Amino acid sequence: MTTFTFRRQLTVEWGHCDPAGIVFNPRFFEFFDTNSWLLFEAALGVKPQDLAGTFDIVGIALVDARADFLKPVRFGDAIDIVSHVSEFRRSSFDVAHKLTVGGELAVEGGESRVWTARDKADLDKITAAPIPPEVIAKFG
Amino acid sequence: MTTFTFRRQLTVEWGHCDPAGIVFNPRFFEFFDTNSWLLFEAALGVKPQDLAGTFDIVGIALVDARADFLKPVRFGDAIDIVSHVSEFRRSSFDVAHKLTVGGELAVEGGESRVWTARDKADLDKITAAPIPPEVIAKFG
Amino acid sequence: MTTFTFRRQLTVEWGHCDPAGIVFNPRFFEFFDTNSWLLFEAALGVKPQDLAGTFDIVGIALVDARADFLKPVRFGDAIDIVSHVSEFRRSSFDVAHKLTVGGELAVEGGESRVWTARDKADLDKITAAPIPPEVIAKFG
Amino acid sequence: MTTFTFRRQLTVEWGHCDPAGIVFNPRFFEFFDTNSWLLFEAALGVKPQDLAGTFDIVGIALVDARADFLKPVRFGDAIDIVSHVSEFRRSSFDVAHKLTVGGELAVEGGESRVWTARDKADLDKITAAPIPPEVIAKFG
Repeated sequence: MTTFTFRRQLTVEWGHCDPAGIVFNPRFFEFFDTNSWLLFEAALGVKPQDLAGTFDIVGIALVDARADFLKPVRFGDAIDIVSHVSEFRRSSFDVAHKLTVGGELAVEGGESRVWTARDKADLDKITAAPIPPEVIAKFG
Repeated sequence: MTTFTFRRQLTVEWGHCDPAGIVFNPRFFEFFDTNSWLLFEAALGVKPQDLAGTFDIVGIALVDARADFLKPVRFGDAIDIVSHVSEFRRSSFDVAHKLTVGGELAVEGGESRVWTARDKADLDKITAAPIPPEVIAKFG
Repeated sequence: MTTFTFRRQLTVEWGHCDPAGIVFNPRFFEFFDTNSWLLFEAALGVKPQDLAGTFDIVGIALVDARADFLKPVRFGDAIDIVSHVSEFRRSSFDVAHKLTVGGELAVEGGESRVWTARDKADLDKITAAPIPPEVIAKFG
Repeated sequence: MTTFTFRRQLTVEWGHCDPAGIVFNPRFFEFFDTNSWLLFEAALGVKPQDLAGTFDIVGIALVDARADFLKPVRFGDAIDIVSHVSEFRRSSFDVAHKLTVGGELAVEGGESRVWTARDKADLDKITAAPIPPEVIAKFG
């Protein structure tokens, strides 16, 4: 059984970069956030804007994000971001992101997210909900 | 009768700047957007997050934004942004922003916004609504 | 003679949007800035990061930006941004951007930019320089 | 001997927030980045834009960033970010950030940074340099 993987290519824009001419670190977290949405779209066949409605959830709330910056990434660099779910738990999961430039690992990112839904007993309350087995199955 | 004016000071951050070491232009539109919210808070005594609820509106939708960049604004510059409503119309208004560095005009911005509300006859529809006279009065 | 046009498609991301679920206005200026760089790359065959070096300039400095927001653009919308140089002057030019969603015009943007170079007599000084005729020719 | 601590207060802006009405995660990394610059300014009495020149370095390069998101932070929330250097090593150091809303911990952030300088033997090369003892001393 192979793990479902999503890969996106983009080119570093002027506005992604700081006065040192390299990508300003929050931009990587933005790239990774988008990759997580697109990874779910690719695995489940559900558009990001339909994810909450399709599964009757509030969302996939981020509880933890981290990144290691191994090499500078510069204006104009063609980058490749490969993402997969590295672990599913009952109501949470981890996403791993590898960002490469010319095949060399430049940034390694990780996120933990929670499958969140409204509490049936108190709709104002948001709670962690069990991830449906059919969702997990799609990720291999 | 004087026009109500809001003034905010901030210091240009590393992440506001591009590889040329100057503020990346979308950041100015972010600065101006925030100034418009704070101008309304200062004039009306209503916090930005309470504006829609207080006046039973959807918001103050932006329909037009523009800026002239007269002088470069750099990392570490202490800037001053002075904003006021330059014109009120029935259901729309213009905001003018002047951004100075050391007293010299560096960026001049302008916005047109619409006072938007839900259509009473069709709550799914958003429509331009008349700005209450008591709101206009607070701006002098 | 036809005008050289650059077209880019992108999908609106979660992080592009504000609490109203629509694109936060500074993001449009970011989209347009990137389109200007890519328009020049497409017309001249010079990568954005090589533009300054190739033409011995400092850059294409933005002096004026504006946008009209005609329709809300939402999370997940597939957008199309078509850009062209609407006018060349001796050392400056205008770029026009049309952003559509499903074929309908949603945002109309415009920029004025200056071809800037170091002053040969005083290298610390940046000045407007004449745009080379071969550059203008490439835009049709 | 007490640890030198820097504290900054800010109010969450409309443009910081996503369609869920809470701060979009990359913004926290932007807040933390700025706090690190301001922590150094407060401890050393050197403005961010003068840090490299004063110490003959390239900068304080980020090699690792992480954050735990414990509570949602909303539009209009008054936040407090307290930062300190949690450990100095020979040429690198860690910064810890605590972001609170109404006294409750909402986000906990951490960074590792490297004191980087040009290699004296090869000025094109950037290398980790020993942090001067007088710098470390200022942090208590």
